Amino acid sequence: MRNILIIGAGRSSSSLIKYLLDKSTEENLHITIGDLSLENAKRKTNDHPNASAIKLNVFNSEERENAIKSSDIVISMLPAHLHIEVAKNCVQFEKHMVTASYISKEMKALDEEIVKKGLVFMNEIGLDPGIDHMSAMEVINKIREKGGKMLLFESFTGGLVAPESDNNLWNYKFTWNPRNVVLAGQGGASKFIQEGTYKYIPYHKLFRRTEFLKINGSGTFEGYANRDSLKYRSIYGLDDIPTMYRGTIRKVGFSRAWNVFVQLGMTDDSYTIEDSENMSYRDFTNSFLAYSPSDSVELKFRSYLKIDQDDVMWEKFVELDIFNPNKKVALQNATPAQILQKILMDSWTLAPEDKDMIVMHHKFGYEDENGKHQIESSMVIKGEDQTYTAMAKTVGLPVAMATLRILNGEITKPGVQLPINQEVYEPILEELQDFGVTFIEKEVPYLGYNLEGIRG
Amino acid sequence: MRNILIIGAGRSSSSLIKYLLDKSTEENLHITIGDLSLENAKRKTNDHPNASAIKLNVFNSEERENAIKSSDIVISMLPAHLHIEVAKNCVQFEKHMVTASYISKEMKALDEEIVKKGLVFMNEIGLDPGIDHMSAMEVINKIREKGGKMLLFESFTGGLVAPESDNNLWNYKFTWNPRNVVLAGQGGASKFIQEGTYKYIPYHKLFRRTEFLKINGSGTFEGYANRDSLKYRSIYGLDDIPTMYRGTIRKVGFSRAWNVFVQLGMTDDSYTIEDSENMSYRDFTNSFLAYSPSDSVELKFRSYLKIDQDDVMWEKFVELDIFNPNKKVALQNATPAQILQKILMDSWTLAPEDKDMIVMHHKFGYEDENGKHQIESSMVIKGEDQTYTAMAKTVGLPVAMATLRILNGEITKPGVQLPINQEVYEPILEELQDFGVTFIEKEVPYLGYNLEGIRG
Repeated sequence: MRNILIIGAGRSSSSLIKYLLDKSTEENLHITIGDLSLENAKRKTNDHPNASAIKLNVFNSEERENAIKSSDIVISMLPAHLHIEVAKNCVQFEKHMVTASYISKEMKALDEEIVKKGLVFMNEIGLDPGIDHMSAMEVINKIREKGGKMLLFESFTGGLVAPESDNNLWNYKFTWNPRNVVLAGQGGASKFIQEGTYKYIPYHKLFRRTEFLKINGSGTFEGYANRDSLKYRSIYGLDDIPTMYRGTIRKVGFSRAWNVFVQLGMTDDSYTIEDSENMSYRDFTNSFLAYSPSDSVELKFRSYLKIDQDDVMWEKFVELDIFNPNKKVALQNATPAQILQKILMDSWTLAPEDKDMIVMHHKFGYEDENGKHQIESSMVIKGEDQTYTAMAKTVGLPVAMATLRILNGEITKPGVQLPINQEVYEPILEELQDFGVTFIEKEVPYLGYNLEGIRG
Repeated sequence: MRNILIIGAGRSSSSLIKYLLDKSTEENLHITIGDLSLENAKRKTNDHPNASAIKLNVFNSEERENAIKSSDIVISMLPAHLHIEVAKNCVQFEKHMVTASYISKEMKALDEEIVKKGLVFMNEIGLDPGIDHMSAMEVINKIREKGGKMLLFESFTGGLVAPESDNNLWNYKFTWNPRNVVLAGQGGASKFIQEGTYKYIPYHKLFRRTEFLKINGSGTFEGYANRDSLKYRSIYGLDDIPTMYRGTIRKVGFSRAWNVFVQLGMTDDSYTIEDSENMSYRDFTNSFLAYSPSDSVELKFRSYLKIDQDDVMWEKFVELDIFNPNKKVALQNATPAQILQKILMDSWTLAPEDKDMIVMHHKFGYEDENGKHQIESSMVIKGEDQTYTAMAKTVGLPVAMATLRILNGEITKPGVQLPINQEVYEPILEELQDFGVTFIEKEVPYLGYNLEGIRG
């Protein structure tokens, strides 16, 4: 039996665990699921004979070391900043490791020793980062092999609610960590390059600088820029590409309304609100508006944010009940972001029968001896239920597939890496199709921006 | 001879040094001026027989310790974060110390030892903080002594250009550290309280949430909120006051135009612009606008910031030459804030004959057995020239006056402190009048906000 240790039995591990358990007999696998909550871990084993659950507090070095020592490969599904202690033990005890998170500086620093020991540390092999890397590299390498020169790469991903479960005015529900949704876009200006011109968008303008995306068969969406698109130039080997843009997908109209929260300051997580526990939703809203006691909170809100009487956006805020004087925040020493998250969770939490949906869309512009071309590639996948969500599938399945391939000696290149090598992405993308992760590619006219040849 | 060591011979030390040198014979003082540049220090001695200049690198502990050891009292005019090493040596060698900066946590931590040794560490005794504390405490204590209960305290200060030197469309020039002006308001939401209601303004809305101030004899100004007005409640002994607001004064119209830079993201100091050295002012402006090469930067700017064709604000940007394709930024790896500072310094640097002006304005609301009352107190002072600026006078003179009084045993209370005790503020405010720092007080009707008795 080969022993796979999975640390962290959260929401996104269900498809990962199911995949490995389904293969466990044929592949001779034993799956150990370690979680801070033993009960949680037990539930995830589904009483499968090839699985066992253990209590694992990642801050307890004895528990951590014992679990890692007795495994052949380790999957860390912990929050990103907690991978590093696991990684150090994996180096120490010479175990391969797989995560769905961005490679941290601390992780990267272990690379030399990892290569020396012949270990594979595969990271960024979930959805985004993960499937985005793999599906992009496949097309980019195909273009290069045919002698094309890349001119443009734009890539968008969104975790949304499936149309059949889409029943609020925001066309959005929390299908992933709500806190990350509230804080999305913070921490610095967004940076990208368009036809050789660098562009910078501050956080407080990000949600007004969206662009529309028509995705075959799924309708129109909008995208806003991710923080740093520029670093992907070197990762993808596109150092000189004139256009590089990565973004997040939302249903049309979401960002313009979300911008109101940004403008008010409700997404700020850097300070706590005085007496937050006892304030009503209305008090919370009012604390960001001018003091003017003879005017209603509603009118001050409309006037400050310039929301016309006939603007459909208004109903979105009414739906969230942010003017309710009776609902209490009931959170002690809470930041604006924490209070906003609570208010949104009242309305945006998935109902038991709700399904989620992942949308990914790439644009590839390139030039060859026949002129300029553009390829668009899209993937849309819906969840089955609240356990096997689209998010759990797209994050967990590539992790599981990579883990098994490392174990079976099919992925062999040692070092701290992400899935941009053909030996990794080609077989995994192919297998993902069996699980409904299918990209539809089409050729479209090369559009670009430079309509008149004038720089602007 | 009593030896006064002044560390840091910058722009704001001229009036400080002149005051002490003028008193040096009569008061038996020797003034040692220490600066990183010996030449700078020498120039400030003005060849006065009671002054000497030394080279003093505050990071060189031997230079620092020798200078402090041979003094009786130390004035640190260094940037605020550099006071602490000086302060530690002052404790070690049992010397009093004076600064014009906010009390840092590190400084506060030395308090116990300082009290034990009977030393006076006077801080926040410049303009703002400094004269604002003293002039406010004088009125607040007068109101309390007469049995009044404080209802409202609002306080505004601004460093401006004098009307006779005010010849640009912004009605503003740099009379103080330009970097601090560019970064003003950053670092977190502004917090204050109005009639018991806490209010929070995010940075990106700060410059649209101004209020107008009519100051007797000097016209109308505007004020925007400082970062944290709330902490002054406990400092001034006004813990239960329902209205507490501190702000910065600008000429009318400045903030609405400045807001455009904030909206664009030009005041961001957290990242560097690609190839900043070779870009033009126009390129810099364009990097914050959407890529749309067939449109002019001017039109994109107007459209994005919603600046109507007849909006006088437009000319302010033209005046700064931010659309110039020929002027180069010529700064390597510069942040947006650094580039904006350079652009502004082209236009806002004081000419040799220009004079500056300080405006301070307080509002005190209180209640006694006769009802509600309001006192307004204003101070306006202009600089004499580019050496004895209003800023140098208002920052340096209170520092000098406090230093001499500590040396003469007139200020005796030991410990890390700010000038809120009567033994400190009363004589200093009186002496400041001889130098033109005069507050005009008047009683006005109590206005408040709560016109209809409705909370908003």
